[in-house]
Amino acid sequence: MTDFGSGDGDVGVLKGVALGIVPQAQLVDITHEIAPQRVASAAWILSTVYRYFPAGTVFVCVIDPGVGSTRRAIALYAGDWYFVGPDNGLFSYIYAEQPVHSIVNLSNPAYHLTQVSSTFHGRDIFTPVGAHLARGVPLEDIGERLEPDSLIRLPLGIERHENRIESSVVHIDHFGNIITGIPLTLVPELFSQPVQLHIPARSIMLTECRRFFSATDEANEARPFIYGDSSGYIGVAIRNGNAARTLGVAYGDTITLVIAERESQFR
Amino acid sequence: MTDFGSGDGDVGVLKGVALGIVPQAQLVDITHEIAPQRVASAAWILSTVYRYFPAGTVFVCVIDPGVGSTRRAIALYAGDWYFVGPDNGLFSYIYAEQPVHSIVNLSNPAYHLTQVSSTFHGRDIFTPVGAHLARGVPLEDIGERLEPDSLIRLPLGIERHENRIESSVVHIDHFGNIITGIPLTLVPELFSQPVQLHIPARSIMLTECRRFFSATDEANEARPFIYGDSSGYIGVAIRNGNAARTLGVAYGDTITLVIAERESQFR
Amino acid sequence: MTDFGSGDGDVGVLKGVALGIVPQAQLVDITHEIAPQRVASAAWILSTVYRYFPAGTVFVCVIDPGVGSTRRAIALYAGDWYFVGPDNGLFSYIYAEQPVHSIVNLSNPAYHLTQVSSTFHGRDIFTPVGAHLARGVPLEDIGERLEPDSLIRLPLGIERHENRIESSVVHIDHFGNIITGIPLTLVPELFSQPVQLHIPARSIMLTECRRFFSATDEANEARPFIYGDSSGYIGVAIRNGNAARTLGVAYGDTITLVIAERESQFR
Repeated sequence: MTDFGSGDGDVGVLKGVALGIVPQAQLVDITHEIAPQRVASAAWILSTVYRYFPAGTVFVCVIDPGVGSTRRAIALYAGDWYFVGPDNGLFSYIYAEQPVHSIVNLSNPAYHLTQVSSTFHGRDIFTPVGAHLARGVPLEDIGERLEPDSLIRLPLGIERHENRIESSVVHIDHFGNIITGIPLTLVPELFSQPVQLHIPARSIMLTECRRFFSATDEANEARPFIYGDSSGYIGVAIRNGNAARTLGVAYGDTITLVIAERESQFR
Repeated sequence: MTDFGSGDGDVGVLKGVALGIVPQAQLVDITHEIAPQRVASAAWILSTVYRYFPAGTVFVCVIDPGVGSTRRAIALYAGDWYFVGPDNGLFSYIYAEQPVHSIVNLSNPAYHLTQVSSTFHGRDIFTPVGAHLARGVPLEDIGERLEPDSLIRLPLGIERHENRIESSVVHIDHFGNIITGIPLTLVPELFSQPVQLHIPARSIMLTECRRFFSATDEANEARPFIYGDSSGYIGVAIRNGNAARTLGVAYGDTITLVIAERESQFR
Repeated sequence: MTDFGSGDGDVGVLKGVALGIVPQAQLVDITHEIAPQRVASAAWILSTVYRYFPAGTVFVCVIDPGVGSTRRAIALYAGDWYFVGPDNGLFSYIYAEQPVHSIVNLSNPAYHLTQVSSTFHGRDIFTPVGAHLARGVPLEDIGERLEPDSLIRLPLGIERHENRIESSVVHIDHFGNIITGIPLTLVPELFSQPVQLHIPARSIMLTECRRFFSATDEANEARPFIYGDSSGYIGVAIRNGNAARTLGVAYGDTITLVIAERESQFR
């Protein structure tokens, strides 16, 4: 996973480096279209992906605006998976969701390329380390151990205060669906009680909530609604339409979800 | 093959799911850039691709605007290949071009993910089924048998009436070449008799027809011409130019091809 | 590596063809987003990539505006790698950088698809030949030998005249960094002596030069600077910005680098 795009040869270079170390690797692209250097968006996408991969998978994540600075390069084993990348908050959801068994600083140059550039650690450090982990090198050989509480964490910022949840738009997906940072598990009453969703910056207030897209419900095609996204987060969609474009909503916009008291307070 | 784009992590998720079931799989992307939910375009692209893959290949195709509705999810064995996806016409060219040996409804939950969402059947149903087929599970275990005449078929709508063939623009390719729905095999006299191609909506009438792009013919660079596309269909191109943009032609535009009688009726 | 984009099924077709010949192949995409038919850009990207792949890797490169003309189709073994593609200058950097052991014309139809179209040699000739090379067919079986001096070479055009180097913009990368055709090895004094970089067409003159992006140097965020790109070439960047867009620089713009004499002549 990178923010390199697919127009340069850089993603190919990472794969060439990996195959030189572990020729039989299964290489999978998560995405290379992260908006340049948008760490929070990358962290969220990673959180929706990793669980679906086999135990032992190594995720090499290079969204690294701080390359060349003193930011640390790390590798960790959490839940059933390995993660390699810069210590800039990219793994914040992993820390929150999985038991972190071990974290190391990528301090052992034996597992880097022999010549390390100052601007392309994806090629020179992260990918070689990921490939060595994939071929079975133990994490403790890669570098010295780090304490979990020394790691950079993004403010995930989702807290529920009684019936209000403040969050923001964490992603606009390919279909224009607006994804919030509110996990479905945080709102068990989503589909049983009335809810309101506010996006103050755009003067938007939604009250219609559906469990899913109903392909047979042709009547309200043009109306945006709240729904439970398959990523596990609350979203806003328009059936057969682009909700983000229609509503003018952008990445980072603040969102408030309000759940009605037992006796609905809305109407 | 999906309409997911490559900016989200969804395509990666499908591959993670597949590798969990069949770790040694060869995973190939056909395209993930199908215009959202444009089933007809996806069906056509699939028709130009499948023949070039080894016998036994499983094609998992997720262009699925009806997800969450009552549309059926199917798998079939046709010619030498397996196809998995929604029953929405995506496989119309396959039905027309290949002997269909067997079709099943994806009714056996043993071959789905244990938790099935209502909006992401690509992850929860289609990919797991495809991966199980790839590891050798017989089609009859996947679900109950369907009759071929119960399947949804798109109107391919290519019929030849004496010397006229009505069709439409089925695809604009990466170079701006305009691809019609008229297979070359339907017009054996294409390069031996004069032809005319009309696009009424754009007031276009072409009469120049070339067997291929001639790189040495510098003279008529700017003039659009009819040609036999390598996909096996009749197209319109401008050498070193973008025919669709230059002519203002769009997906879905109606096209009429007229073949001259033995004695050319044109001129 | 192609200029096919990823919206059609063509890249998938190449992979299907390859897997039919060598089922256990490791298939890696370099990029398919080369601006249509821009051979010089493709040649440069290839030059930044191939060294990072294992010995024996076969590079199939299809940027081929002359398809259907008399341009030759070739395969070569140079350094530790194989390269297959049209003889149009795509491998100019390889000729300049690596010992070329052997070059052949792809004249033996036994290693092509049985039906060869006039417009899709990527599918019908280059990929099958590449796959046969990958499974161990010797180069001399693929076709008759060619002499190196008969090959098309692009004018790489980088010559140093005392303290002036003329070049051009060979690539704008995903982050908007401007890459020149001047290899770092040609300017050993880059970081020890003052330099000037001129882009006359845009009235640009830069004198700030940094070894790398410094993430801690927040002061000059908005100022473009000269730097040593990880590809091995001299570039121009703006930290956390898009230099090409900000400066209005485009692919092909002429660039002059001037290195100060021992006693700096600038100021």
